[in-house]
Amino acid sequence: MSAAPRNRRLVLAERPSGMVDEKTVRLEDGPAPDPGPAEALVRVRYLSIDPTIRTWMNDAPGYLPAIAIGDVVRGGGIAEVVKSGNDRYREGDLVFGMTGWQDFAVVDEAAGAMQVLPAGIDPLAALSVLGVTGMTAYFGLLDVGRLVERDTVVVSGAAGATGSVVGQIAKIKGAGRVVGIAGTAEKCAWLVDELGFDGAVNYRTDNVGGKLRELCPKGIDLYFDNVGGEILDTCLGQLALRGRVVLCGAISTYNEAGPVPGPGNYRNLIVVRGRMEGFLILDYLDRFPEAQASMFGWLAEGKILHSEHVVEGLESAPDALNLLFTGGNTGKVIVKVDEP
Amino acid sequence: MSAAPRNRRLVLAERPSGMVDEKTVRLEDGPAPDPGPAEALVRVRYLSIDPTIRTWMNDAPGYLPAIAIGDVVRGGGIAEVVKSGNDRYREGDLVFGMTGWQDFAVVDEAAGAMQVLPAGIDPLAALSVLGVTGMTAYFGLLDVGRLVERDTVVVSGAAGATGSVVGQIAKIKGAGRVVGIAGTAEKCAWLVDELGFDGAVNYRTDNVGGKLRELCPKGIDLYFDNVGGEILDTCLGQLALRGRVVLCGAISTYNEAGPVPGPGNYRNLIVVRGRMEGFLILDYLDRFPEAQASMFGWLAEGKILHSEHVVEGLESAPDALNLLFTGGNTGKVIVKVDEP
Repeated sequence: MSAAPRNRRLVLAERPSGMVDEKTVRLEDGPAPDPGPAEALVRVRYLSIDPTIRTWMNDAPGYLPAIAIGDVVRGGGIAEVVKSGNDRYREGDLVFGMTGWQDFAVVDEAAGAMQVLPAGIDPLAALSVLGVTGMTAYFGLLDVGRLVERDTVVVSGAAGATGSVVGQIAKIKGAGRVVGIAGTAEKCAWLVDELGFDGAVNYRTDNVGGKLRELCPKGIDLYFDNVGGEILDTCLGQLALRGRVVLCGAISTYNEAGPVPGPGNYRNLIVVRGRMEGFLILDYLDRFPEAQASMFGWLAEGKILHSEHVVEGLESAPDALNLLFTGGNTGKVIVKVDEP
Repeated sequence: MSAAPRNRRLVLAERPSGMVDEKTVRLEDGPAPDPGPAEALVRVRYLSIDPTIRTWMNDAPGYLPAIAIGDVVRGGGIAEVVKSGNDRYREGDLVFGMTGWQDFAVVDEAAGAMQVLPAGIDPLAALSVLGVTGMTAYFGLLDVGRLVERDTVVVSGAAGATGSVVGQIAKIKGAGRVVGIAGTAEKCAWLVDELGFDGAVNYRTDNVGGKLRELCPKGIDLYFDNVGGEILDTCLGQLALRGRVVLCGAISTYNEAGPVPGPGNYRNLIVVRGRMEGFLILDYLDRFPEAQASMFGWLAEGKILHSEHVVEGLESAPDALNLLFTGGNTGKVIVKVDEP
């Protein structure tokens, strides 16, 4: 019997304040786990790097429990089945689910946590536009935001994995005007020139309020918020009658310890009879097929472009997470896990 | 031809910062206006004192234009027709509408601004529970808040004109638990002992967060917000899954000049998949009869109690408005306009 392969694990060593680093996320080494009789052992190939992972590192109540100190960092990914005592998983299958930041994971049938990736699907697309990210854009915009034709739509984090898809779906669905907010001139150019946005605001160099007023002279019907903070406040202040704010994330605040300032312009929701609503994509799992069918079609027709920012190496996962907060990425951040 | 009667008018002399006083709202004197051929002259009998009047005094965009400097303070009231060249209004009729803070007003048919009060309706009830205030409670709770049976409901400004009705309708409609937030022990006792609330929090003496957690151990399903500020933030932090925040007013902020802090706990709307929505009762005018029919029934059955805080004298209107901000009232504040 051969020795168990080496398993690297990135564990939460202490709760971060601000960015993560080697003190907060520590690389540990050990043997790969031994799957039980009805379990499968999988080797992680790709990690999906999402802002929400940072929120799980805080010791604060959330929609999932905080990651415990000493536990492997929780996160989604794609893995390959290397050993299986379970009929659902065959050696060589690609599966996706909550792999965690490690080389190997055990798939437990009872948990039903991993799905086999259908043949022919690009793993990168499966983690971005066809995966949780794309589904978040789809249901957030259409179900929570209830987009209607001719709406003026603004999305923040627009060059990110979710925001870039939000804007494109809005155009497909007949939005009158789609404006993205991003952090570099290159990203803004990409939104307008490649993705078909009607306009873009560079929040680092533009006067966001003034530029939005210029680009959205009739106000904002639907604001898809990925960032929170001052940009949320500005957009609340420019909502049109019956305007809607879809709360998807608040990335500008996730690195803050303790209370964060709220949007004083929330009072404008009274003036415009507006609505601000939060959602979690976990609630839409059973409706993924409906959205994926649309997304497949749009991809085939070339109506939706997607971009992945691939970072090499498991040990780069903390830096990859930090990229989301420095805005160093365009599109979905994915870690490609090398073999050690 | 007799001389026109004396007409006192309370005009906005300058924009207040904080409470109103004789510098910001000035009493002027002059002859009553002369109605045109198809118009009516009405003598104001009662003024409805509402927090929103204070917002109209600020030079800020709102759902109605700001009151212009030098104009009579805008406000609703009940008046008696004293002279009419219009078939819709007969001498002696009581009418309600936007009378303004003055002795006399001219009713312009084109504006269609005043409605004749049906016979047998108590004018005080017409301004409170059967009027805009009661309608605000009804549609805010049921239409915007979508109360469902067994909901845990929290209402702030609970001893005020709207809040006291919100809590009682919630009980009638099967809420599992109704908790009011008010500013004195007497008000809290009134809510529980007289109006049938399940609990009350004194925001001046209680730890609001701690007391709410004790009274609403499963979290808040529906928070009806009349006050804004820290209490809104606390309630957002204690929302239950799918919790709803109905934004009716933000009285704690109306006296503030410039930006006000926002609720940092808005992020909890993501965690609980919650919704925060504003509304204006103006949008529900055509549905008043439906709500008034219910309200009439509940009043007749003794299921809804209402309270009016009547202040004597037109010149007391500014002080009456200030009462709303010091919490000096229980129930609806009404000014009884004496004849000069």
